[in-house]
Amino acid sequence: MTISVAGVETVELSNEEMILSFLAEGGDDFVSGAALSDKLGLSRAAVWKHVETLRRLGYRIDAQPSRGYRLIEVPDRLTSLELAPLLSTRELGREIHHFETTGSTNAEAWRLAEEGAINGEVVIAEHQTEGRGRRGRTWVSPKGSNLYLSGVLRPEIPPARAAELTLLAAVALAETLREAGAPATIKWPNDVQIDGRKVAGILTELSADVDRVHFIVLGIGVNLNTAPRDFPPDVAEVATSLMAARGQPVPRALFTAALLTSLEAWLDRWADQGFGPVRSAWRKLSSTLGQEVLVRSDANELRGVAEDIDDSGALLLRVGNKLERVFAGDVEQLRTKKS
Amino acid sequence: MTISVAGVETVELSNEEMILSFLAEGGDDFVSGAALSDKLGLSRAAVWKHVETLRRLGYRIDAQPSRGYRLIEVPDRLTSLELAPLLSTRELGREIHHFETTGSTNAEAWRLAEEGAINGEVVIAEHQTEGRGRRGRTWVSPKGSNLYLSGVLRPEIPPARAAELTLLAAVALAETLREAGAPATIKWPNDVQIDGRKVAGILTELSADVDRVHFIVLGIGVNLNTAPRDFPPDVAEVATSLMAARGQPVPRALFTAALLTSLEAWLDRWADQGFGPVRSAWRKLSSTLGQEVLVRSDANELRGVAEDIDDSGALLLRVGNKLERVFAGDVEQLRTKKS
Repeated sequence: MTISVAGVETVELSNEEMILSFLAEGGDDFVSGAALSDKLGLSRAAVWKHVETLRRLGYRIDAQPSRGYRLIEVPDRLTSLELAPLLSTRELGREIHHFETTGSTNAEAWRLAEEGAINGEVVIAEHQTEGRGRRGRTWVSPKGSNLYLSGVLRPEIPPARAAELTLLAAVALAETLREAGAPATIKWPNDVQIDGRKVAGILTELSADVDRVHFIVLGIGVNLNTAPRDFPPDVAEVATSLMAARGQPVPRALFTAALLTSLEAWLDRWADQGFGPVRSAWRKLSSTLGQEVLVRSDANELRGVAEDIDDSGALLLRVGNKLERVFAGDVEQLRTKKS
Repeated sequence: MTISVAGVETVELSNEEMILSFLAEGGDDFVSGAALSDKLGLSRAAVWKHVETLRRLGYRIDAQPSRGYRLIEVPDRLTSLELAPLLSTRELGREIHHFETTGSTNAEAWRLAEEGAINGEVVIAEHQTEGRGRRGRTWVSPKGSNLYLSGVLRPEIPPARAAELTLLAAVALAETLREAGAPATIKWPNDVQIDGRKVAGILTELSADVDRVHFIVLGIGVNLNTAPRDFPPDVAEVATSLMAARGQPVPRALFTAALLTSLEAWLDRWADQGFGPVRSAWRKLSSTLGQEVLVRSDANELRGVAEDIDDSGALLLRVGNKLERVFAGDVEQLRTKKS
């Protein structure tokens, strides 16, 4: 069955996804069996069978003969069944490849993209054994409590513009974290932090020729429900989680759906209007601009004041009288300057 | 056995490659069995056995008891055996993966790179069934008479700089064609032409994250010995070959070795001095600069005078009073302007 999202596009949902969608809409109220049967074009016995399937999958659904059905609890899992009813995207996350364990979601998405995965297909894993970060680093990926997600994107851009997507993802991430109650900021280029500790990371990889990107794999790792004490000691010093920041666990499916929705909205705006709106939003969310920083890249260290990012996402660093453009590197914030 | 190249690096050559190398050095003169035996540290009987192996592989080697050995003819093949004795590169082409037929040498090199191929490994095919060109086009690849080559490169650059390699390859190609006696020029960005007809093409593909290229596959197709009448009719109108241009067949191994040598020299200069020297050489070889041109990209057409290329390889096009930067597209030359 297909439903219309935002009155524009239609997406395929299974009967289980449809039922969850209507129950989620009902909130604490009961939805009558007659209404479900009507909306799905199924017999009331068939509706009951699908509800039973959902219960076996871990959904707690209250059923009362006179009043109908009510959703009490959703299992803490990130398959299409949990996410589809919560998503209001056209393409992003409409096809979800879910893994209990994988090497890295980016490697998995890369493989799918090489086999022809379409724009918006997403890989989610409960656990990564070889989670990767920027510059060949590892991304610690404990099981079951966080979000490890990689999306396949096929924008028609030259490879030089791929860096814009990293900043775009940082904006969507920081905004989603703020809506979830944490004061997230972005350290250039794309470290998402809460109170100076890393809560999320982004790894954007691309396959391209010099004229055109073939595909992009946008990888996102977010520390959601891992307690800081459960990180390895060296990571615990510099990392935090959304749960630690707001003092209560995060419903992972809700967060993931909100993030995918925000990402797609930003991707649409970017496709329409270019990098300008992303740049403006990034500036507002940045903790780097106005600061005296030390930037380390492969061979060099540069010390200066981070003035702005330019229209390609490069950091503009005031070093003495010169304004240097920095394309890649790690930023260390030295001290806060009044701005 | 290893020999020293240019007094700096050592490369591994097989005994057959060593013998061919010494015979090639000897030119029309005989090289004595004693000298070969001495240089290779092998008995004269062992030298004889290797010469016999070479003869079975198609090499014509003259042997006279009193004078020694002389190389008469080399088979028209592009394996390591033909190329290694002619190469003076450190890395490029030192490992050659030779195919009679493959889908595309770029696809093959991409696969090897993903499996860990090192900088400089090269794929050569006698025939491509799915030869690819820029912007998703096909590259007609008849069997046995031309050059279809893809190299794996691992420069430490951000993805935006990959386009420089395409212009670098065009320069190396045009120079090698000129040394072979054909008046080659470059049409922006990287069509190598003789008298306005295409003789060679370049397809540069990259795997990267936004900070750094993982690897680049530099694909080169050169029409060497295909007669224009042997191209499909639509290709014959716009294509030519080195043989057609200079009126005699091209020794493919010599051309390939010269091209790889030139490419490595340019890659070394580029690594040391950046894009500047490539840009200067490109300007001198270009047929586009100073011309009134029509540039077609996906959505637009721009008409103007091609003034220069900038320090990233983009075309600077004078349109009325404005100078437009063009990153990708196809150039049609409208008429020659006196410059």
